[in-house]
Amino acid sequence: MGLPMARNLLRAGYRLRVYNRTPARAEELVAEGAERVERPRDLAEPGGVVFSMLADDAALEAVTLGGDGLLAGLAPGGVHVSFSTVSPAIARRMQRLHAERGCAYVAAPVVGRPDAAAAGKLWICLAGEPAARARVLPFLQLLGQAVFPFGDEPALANVVKLAANFLVGSALEALAEALALAEKQGVERSALMEMLAQTIFACSVYQNYGRMIAERHFAPGFSQRLALKDLGLVLDAADEARVPMPLAGLVHNRLLSGVARGRGEEDWTTLARAVDEAAGLV
Amino acid sequence: MGLPMARNLLRAGYRLRVYNRTPARAEELVAEGAERVERPRDLAEPGGVVFSMLADDAALEAVTLGGDGLLAGLAPGGVHVSFSTVSPAIARRMQRLHAERGCAYVAAPVVGRPDAAAAGKLWICLAGEPAARARVLPFLQLLGQAVFPFGDEPALANVVKLAANFLVGSALEALAEALALAEKQGVERSALMEMLAQTIFACSVYQNYGRMIAERHFAPGFSQRLALKDLGLVLDAADEARVPMPLAGLVHNRLLSGVARGRGEEDWTTLARAVDEAAGLV
Amino acid sequence: MGLPMARNLLRAGYRLRVYNRTPARAEELVAEGAERVERPRDLAEPGGVVFSMLADDAALEAVTLGGDGLLAGLAPGGVHVSFSTVSPAIARRMQRLHAERGCAYVAAPVVGRPDAAAAGKLWICLAGEPAARARVLPFLQLLGQAVFPFGDEPALANVVKLAANFLVGSALEALAEALALAEKQGVERSALMEMLAQTIFACSVYQNYGRMIAERHFAPGFSQRLALKDLGLVLDAADEARVPMPLAGLVHNRLLSGVARGRGEEDWTTLARAVDEAAGLV
Amino acid sequence: MGLPMARNLLRAGYRLRVYNRTPARAEELVAEGAERVERPRDLAEPGGVVFSMLADDAALEAVTLGGDGLLAGLAPGGVHVSFSTVSPAIARRMQRLHAERGCAYVAAPVVGRPDAAAAGKLWICLAGEPAARARVLPFLQLLGQAVFPFGDEPALANVVKLAANFLVGSALEALAEALALAEKQGVERSALMEMLAQTIFACSVYQNYGRMIAERHFAPGFSQRLALKDLGLVLDAADEARVPMPLAGLVHNRLLSGVARGRGEEDWTTLARAVDEAAGLV
Repeated sequence: MGLPMARNLLRAGYRLRVYNRTPARAEELVAEGAERVERPRDLAEPGGVVFSMLADDAALEAVTLGGDGLLAGLAPGGVHVSFSTVSPAIARRMQRLHAERGCAYVAAPVVGRPDAAAAGKLWICLAGEPAARARVLPFLQLLGQAVFPFGDEPALANVVKLAANFLVGSALEALAEALALAEKQGVERSALMEMLAQTIFACSVYQNYGRMIAERHFAPGFSQRLALKDLGLVLDAADEARVPMPLAGLVHNRLLSGVARGRGEEDWTTLARAVDEAAGLV
Repeated sequence: MGLPMARNLLRAGYRLRVYNRTPARAEELVAEGAERVERPRDLAEPGGVVFSMLADDAALEAVTLGGDGLLAGLAPGGVHVSFSTVSPAIARRMQRLHAERGCAYVAAPVVGRPDAAAAGKLWICLAGEPAARARVLPFLQLLGQAVFPFGDEPALANVVKLAANFLVGSALEALAEALALAEKQGVERSALMEMLAQTIFACSVYQNYGRMIAERHFAPGFSQRLALKDLGLVLDAADEARVPMPLAGLVHNRLLSGVARGRGEEDWTTLARAVDEAAGLV
Repeated sequence: MGLPMARNLLRAGYRLRVYNRTPARAEELVAEGAERVERPRDLAEPGGVVFSMLADDAALEAVTLGGDGLLAGLAPGGVHVSFSTVSPAIARRMQRLHAERGCAYVAAPVVGRPDAAAAGKLWICLAGEPAARARVLPFLQLLGQAVFPFGDEPALANVVKLAANFLVGSALEALAEALALAEKQGVERSALMEMLAQTIFACSVYQNYGRMIAERHFAPGFSQRLALKDLGLVLDAADEARVPMPLAGLVHNRLLSGVARGRGEEDWTTLARAVDEAAGLV
Repeated sequence: MGLPMARNLLRAGYRLRVYNRTPARAEELVAEGAERVERPRDLAEPGGVVFSMLADDAALEAVTLGGDGLLAGLAPGGVHVSFSTVSPAIARRMQRLHAERGCAYVAAPVVGRPDAAAAGKLWICLAGEPAARARVLPFLQLLGQAVFPFGDEPALANVVKLAANFLVGSALEALAEALALAEKQGVERSALMEMLAQTIFACSVYQNYGRMIAERHFAPGFSQRLALKDLGLVLDAADEARVPMPLAGLVHNRLLSGVARGRGEEDWTTLARAVDEAAGLV
């Protein structure tokens, strides 16, 4: 996801330094004018703005903290915009560590698949200090079609992102069950899905994922492995706040099973295969 | 639901005979020009078309069968259009009984709340014999904004309706869990819901029900008691076809609990209260 | 189950007429002195006692009711002892129909596997009219090692039997999950099971079934198909009484999936295979 | 739990140094001849044996590690016997840290309630280096009625303990559902429980907890708060090993809800209250 977002900043005329833990990944951006650095701490100019897009809490810590970390390069006044889907717990920790150095940590997790990132059509959930949010807003408006503010606590934007991913996962489970029932009762899967997608569920999640599940055409996009990480974060946040979420548990178990069975790199719509298998359909 | 639908037929200039098990309910239509009959069998003219909208399988049987039932009044060539949300099993039985008398049973369950019925904006799922379907289509186009055909077996339209209601119930559960998590983590419920309703879930189920759940404003519309009946039909159909549907079980249990606790007449969005209670929120 | 029970009555010196819907099944008993009859109604002497052991509600109705049914042969004063695992709803109906003819319907569902039946070591749950219960008690004491009374309403004994079967099914699910966790964490399955079976779970369900699941040695005994019927009855009774039973739903879905996948005739301990499969163990 | 276990060692004639984070807790043992120390590191004699019984992973780390921790006082050749119910992950970490200092970490989690500890009737799951296990076995035989070996990896004993607690929690859920169904169908709760406890479930978990749930007499013993911690460890271990455990999730959510609603200090059998509430029973 980070690649198309960085490219959009470059194309808008911004100078960009880039770092990727796998250096080859950054080469494409270098070819388009970015400057590659060796250590995350070299990304920032003092008092500048750094963006990060990383796979999980551990990667965010690895890139941000320590002597080579990006935080070490952000002098007072700097802003770190974190696009990653990470836990509210680490967002609170990052907020504190950045504040201790006179920097701001802004959470800006994004909603949308890679093609939306490429088109600058992401939806961005934003939370953090008001001044820092105002400063980075122009960049975010380049990257997304809308920015939704959720207040001063960065962790809240991460909660919102987790809630959204949980809702998508729940829709996948619901669609998979509904389509398995329909098929075994004799209804044509795509006919059902067309009706739903044109009526009460005429929205992108149901239209896009619903079609994939109806046709059992599971194009790669977001892996079960990463989705499992996200559902794990949902359940951790639910435990922390003491909120029983049985549906989140159900979706989590589908993904956990998918990974256990060696399907971790398949798109998370393939959780529908487990529904089909349980029904003897495949 | 039957009342606004009958009114739309009257207003289009059709002559209508009406029957309701509670006679007072029919009076409003009589004032608008309908003729009230004493027995369902007097509804039909030989070879004509009869519409029924009833609460459940038992009511459909009671009104259709027996010496006073509407089927007894439908001579060969007649068509019975059944709008009710009933089981595929009874649809198959009705299909057979109607065929034995030279009549056609057409299933046309409707999707939409009472205001959509009043506005002629229902979505209608249609299944039954092709000739009978063609004959009744003009009426259905008066009542709905779109008609979706699902083939020659009436039961299939009922399966589709059950699948749709299951999907709505699943969305309610998902929204209730997501909003409880968000609230206990400090996110403003309506802010989250606005973001979702404008982005990946920009469809009527999430917009309308999501707002109700976010604001805990549970306007009456579709009772937990009736929704429990529908989820029971979903699970019966799933058993019949041997399709495990754990999410349907979860939603069913929410509704069963609601009815057990005396909330059967409240709108089914109030299943969110059970989610809130389990989280210690209310 | 009916065969060893009938044999125990014969061996105690009682004269017995027998009927089985598959006549060959009765031949073995005829060889031991029973008299085979052609119709259930010929089983009873007027005012006598008839025992039935049948697979489900439909079989109980088929054998009991109608002109050839056993109830037609029971003159006033007769007693029908029903060993079957059937619904409380049909027990209430049978109670009423028997009372209308001056007969008593006594529910006496049995707990135990076929070897316990052969050894006269069943546990019997008994409910029905006090006088009828007293009359049949000597027979039941031949068949079982203990008789547990549950009052005057036959249906209550059926509820008890369903509750017991639900508890066994729940223990199977729990054992399967615990053993899958243990195995994938590196613990030897049988070592864990031995510890449990000698300590806090030193009872027959955990000892017998636990060993089967630990060793994945699924000896035939009680099929997934019949167990699915029982869990279906549990959920029906729960719906009727408005009791959400999520664990019953979970066990039911395991069995439903087993039947959907063609494993209906395997012992119900094989639900552990679905747990193993979901964990990528097999 | 630590108190009666320490007392049994004292009574057997052993010299004992004791430490408790709440010093007053140790006073009772001092009165019986123990010597109280100020820091965990003063517990051990070089090359000696130290026992710990702590609430969770964090407490085990706090008491074991750091300059004042007990590990600092265990010279090469020492053995740390850990009775706590903690995660397999921390057991692996402790094993490594002890090995680095030439010490052995032995996991010996115990099964049984405080009265069993007082009577020296615990069941002990033991895992660790063979020599260290052999050395501490005489002590364990004083504390328990049986010791079950699970090999050389300490973490395995913790997995076993978690599996056992999960099974107990599952039995509580099953009993609560079965008894709610029985009661609402008209069966007397205690009559059902007596039958089960004398027949197929004649073991301590069902007898003791079953009676408490049947009578709704929830004597304090093991709090929902601590049980929630244990079920959290079960789910963490399941995630780590990639084993979907839906029943563990169900029990976890019952406990999470109990804690969310302010019942964290009540015995974990009170999860039955949530079952009753969902059924409209209380």
